Amino acid sequence: MQSKILSQKDINSIVSQVGLNELLDELISRLRTAFTELSAKNVQIPTRTGIHYSNPDLGLLEWMPASIDEGQASLKIVGYHPSNPIKRDLPTILSSIGIFDTQTGHLQCLLDGTFATALRTGAMSAIASELMTRSKSSITLGVIGCGAQAVTQIHSLSRLFEIERIIAYDTNSYASKSLSDRVAFTGIQVESVSESNVVSTLLEKADILCTCTSADPGSGPLFKDFANKPHLHINAVGSDFPTKIELPINLLRRSFVCPDFKEQAMAEGECQKLLEHEISTDITGLLNSRALQQTAKDGLSVFDSTGHAYADYMTGLMFHAFATDMGLGTEIEIESEPPDPIDPYSFLSKPAATCGSSPAKHAIRPISTASSR
Amino acid sequence: MQSKILSQKDINSIVSQVGLNELLDELISRLRTAFTELSAKNVQIPTRTGIHYSNPDLGLLEWMPASIDEGQASLKIVGYHPSNPIKRDLPTILSSIGIFDTQTGHLQCLLDGTFATALRTGAMSAIASELMTRSKSSITLGVIGCGAQAVTQIHSLSRLFEIERIIAYDTNSYASKSLSDRVAFTGIQVESVSESNVVSTLLEKADILCTCTSADPGSGPLFKDFANKPHLHINAVGSDFPTKIELPINLLRRSFVCPDFKEQAMAEGECQKLLEHEISTDITGLLNSRALQQTAKDGLSVFDSTGHAYADYMTGLMFHAFATDMGLGTEIEIESEPPDPIDPYSFLSKPAATCGSSPAKHAIRPISTASSR
Repeated sequence: MQSKILSQKDINSIVSQVGLNELLDELISRLRTAFTELSAKNVQIPTRTGIHYSNPDLGLLEWMPASIDEGQASLKIVGYHPSNPIKRDLPTILSSIGIFDTQTGHLQCLLDGTFATALRTGAMSAIASELMTRSKSSITLGVIGCGAQAVTQIHSLSRLFEIERIIAYDTNSYASKSLSDRVAFTGIQVESVSESNVVSTLLEKADILCTCTSADPGSGPLFKDFANKPHLHINAVGSDFPTKIELPINLLRRSFVCPDFKEQAMAEGECQKLLEHEISTDITGLLNSRALQQTAKDGLSVFDSTGHAYADYMTGLMFHAFATDMGLGTEIEIESEPPDPIDPYSFLSKPAATCGSSPAKHAIRPISTASSR
Repeated sequence: MQSKILSQKDINSIVSQVGLNELLDELISRLRTAFTELSAKNVQIPTRTGIHYSNPDLGLLEWMPASIDEGQASLKIVGYHPSNPIKRDLPTILSSIGIFDTQTGHLQCLLDGTFATALRTGAMSAIASELMTRSKSSITLGVIGCGAQAVTQIHSLSRLFEIERIIAYDTNSYASKSLSDRVAFTGIQVESVSESNVVSTLLEKADILCTCTSADPGSGPLFKDFANKPHLHINAVGSDFPTKIELPINLLRRSFVCPDFKEQAMAEGECQKLLEHEISTDITGLLNSRALQQTAKDGLSVFDSTGHAYADYMTGLMFHAFATDMGLGTEIEIESEPPDPIDPYSFLSKPAATCGSSPAKHAIRPISTASSR
């Protein structure tokens, strides 16, 4: 059986044909429906696990599985290497998503997870913000952490909110100053502030705040608690690792806190500092309760976004569906599929007998293992 | 960056060029060295995890990670669907292996894991059998379970032992009767026996026994304990799931038991019935101790093979190295790699601005989600 491999070019073709705004709108719509219906589905989302190393820089490889009892499952493999942008001119996150047929175990599709991760993370913040924010117009958006995720946070929010201005801060001044250019297509002005103005300007004026930093584990929170504001919605996107937090505990305790994935957030997100009863509800609970939405809108609120495998699954399905519809992708038979399923050699072009009884056509050349490492 | 995708045809080309025997000999040699040196390496092998379902047939998808502190990691994704051969003419195991660069998280190579799993499982049994068996000549090999794994068990053992005859049994008479044809290339005669002769003929005469069944969890053991024999080495290959066992507990207790991966074997293999002190040593311990090898040779011995992710890793590296050496594989840029690593849209061929300010070229066509499920 063939597996459909979507290249970066294929994803590019999908965006060109659909339009970036329209694609994001479609994803927001699909994710809103999917998470509204999530509790009614027979879904398995095992805890993500991975390999963590210092090699010599901090890095990790994680796999995020999701299956839904409708014949498919997905596995996102995601590498997180914060030294990539500066040292190697590569994104922090490099990722791919596999989609599997659960009747057979066959890999149906493999596609990019880097763009998908950025898109779905933005889309989830937009969906959550809409449920927890009183007004959709004249929004001042604060952004702390101006890397790749900031772009899709801003873009996604701009699809559901009328954003008047953005106030941005990053410890890396290149990142904060270049954000304006990177989101110029939204038409929203970006003002970059220095560290000393984060509390007095950025936090003071923001109606919605996105924190999307790659701060080191143990170094948070990003700022000290500040004088109470009656309303502020925060999308805390950066915390996704044990001991990595972005927000002050007292701010969390005063807020309506809604994680994307409660168990994961209690292990890796802002919720790791909270007791279970201090967490209000998860995103599915919030989508299904107008009363809870009203409670969230009445004060401070936090969307604790650790990254949900079900969002990856839905994003992967969306790209797979567009690619199928548009005839995109490269079909490759990856899994060996012997004509006799109980003879693992029967896919080989020559009878195994000839391999067994005659010398090899070519002697084994020495393989430099060093070259493959 | 490009990822090298190896197709079934590429694997076929490697086998044609190297020779099937020579490839297996190379793998046996690489695995023997790798497992001898394993304890001295900085290796991470997290427990395999997965999704288990009845859809409606029993199935599971698991991922088996391995990393070694030399810049690479692997993840084998393996589907186990025992109804595949009869219902869908597909192998029970469909699998692929990803090889990753741990500097960046980049997917370097994706290749078949179905053939690789069968080969490495056979190779590991051959390596273990050599360490625990007194004689290499005039061997009678018993085989219970005549599916795909039986072929590579027999082939691998035939590379290190002079096998005189094979006595085989399977609950499926087609499987047991066809085994002779499937291993004809080895030149070894296969005699198939009925259930009533398993103990009296197969177990009585075997010097080495391979159990490689897909018996249902909870249904084992495959046979009752039998009158003591002074020497018998068993490769128990089928047990790889909680409550799935192949051997009687009393036989295990009389035997020198060596698992491939102790923690995994205690969770999923024959070792789940044993206390920790009843397990002699793992394969690395055995490779490094002539004294333990002698103890194993002096009586009954069991290699409890649950499937080791490090063997998958080494097998994946071998195929990757051959493919690179032979110029095989399809190079595809899967992970989106934006020229500006902090702008996830910068890989798109058109400036995002044009997407944002103009209507989509094509309206979104309705996507039938059913078609993608």
